[in-house]
Amino acid sequence: MAELDLRVNGFLFSAIKAGIRGKDRLDMGLIYALAPAAAAGVFTTNQVKAAPVLLGMERIKGGRVQAVLVNSGIANACTGIEGMAKARGAAAATALAMKISEELVQVSSTGVIGQQLDMACFDRLPQLAAGLEADRAMDVARAIMTTDTVPKVAVRTVTIDGHPVTIAGMAKGSGMIQPNMATMLSYIMTDAAVSPAVLQQMLVNSVNQSFNRITVDGDTSTNDTVLLLASGKAGNDPIDSLASSAAQLLQGAVNDLTRDLALQIVADGEGATKLVTIRVEGGSSDLEAEQAARTVANSPLVKTAFFGQDANWGRIIAALGRSGIEMDQSTVDIAFDEVRIVADGLWLGSTAEEAATRVLQQKAFTVRITLGQGHGTCAIHTCDLSIDYVKINADYRS
Amino acid sequence: MAELDLRVNGFLFSAIKAGIRGKDRLDMGLIYALAPAAAAGVFTTNQVKAAPVLLGMERIKGGRVQAVLVNSGIANACTGIEGMAKARGAAAATALAMKISEELVQVSSTGVIGQQLDMACFDRLPQLAAGLEADRAMDVARAIMTTDTVPKVAVRTVTIDGHPVTIAGMAKGSGMIQPNMATMLSYIMTDAAVSPAVLQQMLVNSVNQSFNRITVDGDTSTNDTVLLLASGKAGNDPIDSLASSAAQLLQGAVNDLTRDLALQIVADGEGATKLVTIRVEGGSSDLEAEQAARTVANSPLVKTAFFGQDANWGRIIAALGRSGIEMDQSTVDIAFDEVRIVADGLWLGSTAEEAATRVLQQKAFTVRITLGQGHGTCAIHTCDLSIDYVKINADYRS
Repeated sequence: MAELDLRVNGFLFSAIKAGIRGKDRLDMGLIYALAPAAAAGVFTTNQVKAAPVLLGMERIKGGRVQAVLVNSGIANACTGIEGMAKARGAAAATALAMKISEELVQVSSTGVIGQQLDMACFDRLPQLAAGLEADRAMDVARAIMTTDTVPKVAVRTVTIDGHPVTIAGMAKGSGMIQPNMATMLSYIMTDAAVSPAVLQQMLVNSVNQSFNRITVDGDTSTNDTVLLLASGKAGNDPIDSLASSAAQLLQGAVNDLTRDLALQIVADGEGATKLVTIRVEGGSSDLEAEQAARTVANSPLVKTAFFGQDANWGRIIAALGRSGIEMDQSTVDIAFDEVRIVADGLWLGSTAEEAATRVLQQKAFTVRITLGQGHGTCAIHTCDLSIDYVKINADYRS
Repeated sequence: MAELDLRVNGFLFSAIKAGIRGKDRLDMGLIYALAPAAAAGVFTTNQVKAAPVLLGMERIKGGRVQAVLVNSGIANACTGIEGMAKARGAAAATALAMKISEELVQVSSTGVIGQQLDMACFDRLPQLAAGLEADRAMDVARAIMTTDTVPKVAVRTVTIDGHPVTIAGMAKGSGMIQPNMATMLSYIMTDAAVSPAVLQQMLVNSVNQSFNRITVDGDTSTNDTVLLLASGKAGNDPIDSLASSAAQLLQGAVNDLTRDLALQIVADGEGATKLVTIRVEGGSSDLEAEQAARTVANSPLVKTAFFGQDANWGRIIAALGRSGIEMDQSTVDIAFDEVRIVADGLWLGSTAEEAATRVLQQKAFTVRITLGQGHGTCAIHTCDLSIDYVKINADYRS
């Protein structure tokens, strides 16, 4: 693809091959703000949290971040006191290299759980710092990849107070993906002027309708982290209320960008050949619709049928039936895109099925489920379960 | 394998090729009691229930069953009023062929959801009835197979009041397996004399510690049915209290038999190459231990690691962390059989890992998880997630 222009006023980026994932892959990245940026963060809800997540959760309370150091290859999760010492050490080394306060450094790690980082990789911090450029965000997006097959980036612009504001983001993640209040790693930079408190509300809002609406395999990572950093260089009047029209403009653009990144993650789900949206309507509440959509989106039988391009609605209705929601099969409708295959719980016949099968041959489609219970709705984005998913995960550590 | 002697005093069995699953496979079976047998039944908790399940739930209340007609190939689920008419029609035809009351007939179906049975298959009921023999239970076990690669049968004997009592059972199931208060199809016959009420309590007890402790893919079928039939021909004093020592003897044998059948189902899980027991101890309650064990047992990342013979404990601890239980990673121990690989949440090093990897090369092993929260325990039996699971389920209907 043509590379997007990911430059954001006030931010520099760098990445190097630090030797954590072999010799020839970018595996360490640095995001640097020219001055302390307003910062918001959302982290994994997994009770097992990686050392850098624990450190990040503590530091984000300050509302300011100037540097984010990230490595792939080793997750630094389940690494005990030694792992926490290494996360703190990495932050300290970054602060030293950049001549900034340690409190302004966030570190992130992604990769294998339970193995210790070899601190020798941090010897290359000066080299990493020396490589900082405004136009190297794509290199950082590449350095955070693990089983990802493509880097995931997006950019949006919006005009606030007559000032053009840019929001650029990157994300990684393709397995252990069912974010809950967080996702895999994602970093979003903007030059808007926003207070940390408003930024945090904005980030939570946007994560809830983007990263928290995707699943690859129902597993939640120990390292999920999303950071939103604002340099304030755009020149707009500082935004200090979420209710302001400027905040709403920015929120809209951030929502749009996070949705874009979230869909890129699902589309690059491990082994995925299909991007599938499960849209449930007519639930007795939004929560019930979500529970139904998640059960369908995570059913191995439904996901293997997607891989087989089989309009196997029986597996979908069986998943709904075990999802724990209130339902009555005689009011359930199911369609693939615009092709209805089930009405009032019953199959509409082979002509409908043939048309539905053609929809399943597409790279992306929506399963539309109507429960007929009320007005609750939810859409969850998922992918198919393919032979390659099994191959990738049977071989991951070897 | 050498065929077991599955004869039970008072029962006859027959199976035919009825043309539902092509021409050359047994696909319809009949279990017949010479006189109405005391009967207990447990059915799927999926809210979407197949027509024969709805019929069976209603009829089992009578406490007596004389004939069980079962077909594979078509599940008769999500088939509306037409499907219910067909289930009732099949029962009526069986009653007519056997000259018994329709109320004494149970029907079961297993196979594709949403397609209608062609009633023409019931033209062969007289042929099915003519084939009834005491020693053809294995043919019925074969007739109920779908993606199963082997028939699943077991037999136990116990002496009650000086009388030898036989319990023989069969089961099918290899996909859409996470029974909850029920399982896939299983029929258990005994010649013990037992009241229907005691039989029902016995069945619930045994199902809870056997079929409800296994999972292949976390999906619960619409057709799960377990029937326990007692002909009373063994000559023991009729058992009418679960507290009696005779009842306890029988319960022990039924428990042992259902566990045997349940493990046969998991070992033959779709594409399975490993039979894995997830044993959780030290939960704050049995329910919390169960929740933890089920989350690990259904994690696609954990299951693909089993397939890859990778002692990937990081995925296990990550699954525990998202399971929703109370936990503290610093008190978690993990072992594969007797080989401890994690103590107090930390990796024990490469020697331990090499020993654990050798355990994973076995066909069957136990993952022992200690949470250190209390005295709650649970064991769930699962299998690996293999390339063949995906192949089987991507192709199932085509």
